[in-house]
Amino acid sequence: MRAFIPLTLLATMASAQTPPTPAPKKMTPNEIVAAAPPSAWKAIPAKDLLVMTLAGGGKVLIQLAPDFAPVHVANIRRLAMSTYWRGSSVYRVQDNYVAQWGINEVKRALPPGVIERPPHEYWRSAAGLSVTPLGSPDPYARSVGFAGGWPVALYADGNASLTHCYGTVGVGRELHPDTGSGVELYAAIGHAPRQLDRNIAIVGRVVSGIERLASLPRGTETMGFYKAGSVAKPIINVTLASAIPAARRPAFEYLDETSPAFAAYVHRRQNRDDDFYRLAAGGVDLCNVQVPVRAKPA
Amino acid sequence: MRAFIPLTLLATMASAQTPPTPAPKKMTPNEIVAAAPPSAWKAIPAKDLLVMTLAGGGKVLIQLAPDFAPVHVANIRRLAMSTYWRGSSVYRVQDNYVAQWGINEVKRALPPGVIERPPHEYWRSAAGLSVTPLGSPDPYARSVGFAGGWPVALYADGNASLTHCYGTVGVGRELHPDTGSGVELYAAIGHAPRQLDRNIAIVGRVVSGIERLASLPRGTETMGFYKAGSVAKPIINVTLASAIPAARRPAFEYLDETSPAFAAYVHRRQNRDDDFYRLAAGGVDLCNVQVPVRAKPA
Repeated sequence: MRAFIPLTLLATMASAQTPPTPAPKKMTPNEIVAAAPPSAWKAIPAKDLLVMTLAGGGKVLIQLAPDFAPVHVANIRRLAMSTYWRGSSVYRVQDNYVAQWGINEVKRALPPGVIERPPHEYWRSAAGLSVTPLGSPDPYARSVGFAGGWPVALYADGNASLTHCYGTVGVGRELHPDTGSGVELYAAIGHAPRQLDRNIAIVGRVVSGIERLASLPRGTETMGFYKAGSVAKPIINVTLASAIPAARRPAFEYLDETSPAFAAYVHRRQNRDDDFYRLAAGGVDLCNVQVPVRAKPA
Repeated sequence: MRAFIPLTLLATMASAQTPPTPAPKKMTPNEIVAAAPPSAWKAIPAKDLLVMTLAGGGKVLIQLAPDFAPVHVANIRRLAMSTYWRGSSVYRVQDNYVAQWGINEVKRALPPGVIERPPHEYWRSAAGLSVTPLGSPDPYARSVGFAGGWPVALYADGNASLTHCYGTVGVGRELHPDTGSGVELYAAIGHAPRQLDRNIAIVGRVVSGIERLASLPRGTETMGFYKAGSVAKPIINVTLASAIPAARRPAFEYLDETSPAFAAYVHRRQNRDDDFYRLAAGGVDLCNVQVPVRAKPA
């Protein structure tokens, strides 16, 4: 028994003489992104793009976030330019949590200019940030939204932080705060571990190749560390896109959160009423709205 | 400059004659779970435990949810008991989304009693559900919490649904609703795709071995399907724990959401103030509070 008849169906029934015009197919979020005009895309500067090459040749590209963690990002740029990570490895993969890489245990001398104990940079003042609100409630912060292409959280104390979403890259540290220089990095490979927000320095996000980390075998030791002597995934090298000759340099861009296309994308993510769906939620959580990023079209 | 001195520190300063007692180390969520008494754990019935054996011998264990999708679960039990999935495969792995398995494309005759088009079972009435609230806001539903060991969402229309969290198992279907019988199943292997809630039948969750699915190579075709002819991950068999001789039968249990241990666990997940953390969020999202499940201690 179905007591409720949708109004649109009633309208169709009333005008049964004329064949009903089928409602236009609603675009999926991906279709909205694909249809965004070139003006809606913003280039990621080459000096903000870290290129990590894994054994086998697969690449993981990471966009750095100098507006949120300037000292850590400066460290990371220096480490990359000095080939610090040549011959390092992904040595920890914990299911539904993180993949972590660097040198681990063995200590290499830091290249000149790298600050061993940077300020924490776990948050910054929200002043000066232009935030496009998500418009859905958030369990971790007063409000959330997007700024400069990044998902951000705003807190009651007037501060803002980047957020741990799938693909977010942060700085490994010891128990004591302010102990991470950037030599050990991790990427989130599971459900967003937002409890880490404001507790660790976020320095960027994987914009291409996260599946190369997320599909690695999980480590069998505590916290997903690989067993000593087992084959961790070797890292051939890490460099900056700006150091790669222009002809071979990767170029990426993100969808500007102030564009109409981005607004339409978020709206559809909040209200999935495209073909597959029966009931739209009317809301979405921040980390379920990944900022669209793509290789710059030729 | 630090103008703010915590009260506890002031108290310590006032009684400087006696050496300060170090604050007891706060337990992590995992430590709280490990310390829960046996009475806080509830057995998962053997008839609700699906045992999937992958090529190589690795097992994926799935707890079924008959209180939420009884017809689909009955189908799945019958399919398992008839060895329907013997020689099937994981044929789709989409990064940050799902791993999907079954027969795909090729159609096998359904065993007797399996209903080809079950009712949708995308939600149920909240009446009769005893829900322990999470106590943090949710972007997708009016409120969320736990019932019978499951994460659940409650909606304004008086209905409730299970939620798509990491490890949630649902029934693959075509574009048209009510087209999934349970022969094709998927597990969420990335950030919670909660937009699927109430749009697809959730039939259970992986309680052991999700990493075997989450670390599979991603499919290179649209939506993560494996390329035709490429090696999908073969499934040796799927059966029910209740059909396995008692001596070899796996037994699992979950932490009762009405127990004090569960309350303490949720509280710490919302307020990470154990050693590693500097700032507790004061909230957490539903899918970042996985219901603890463990193999029953011998």
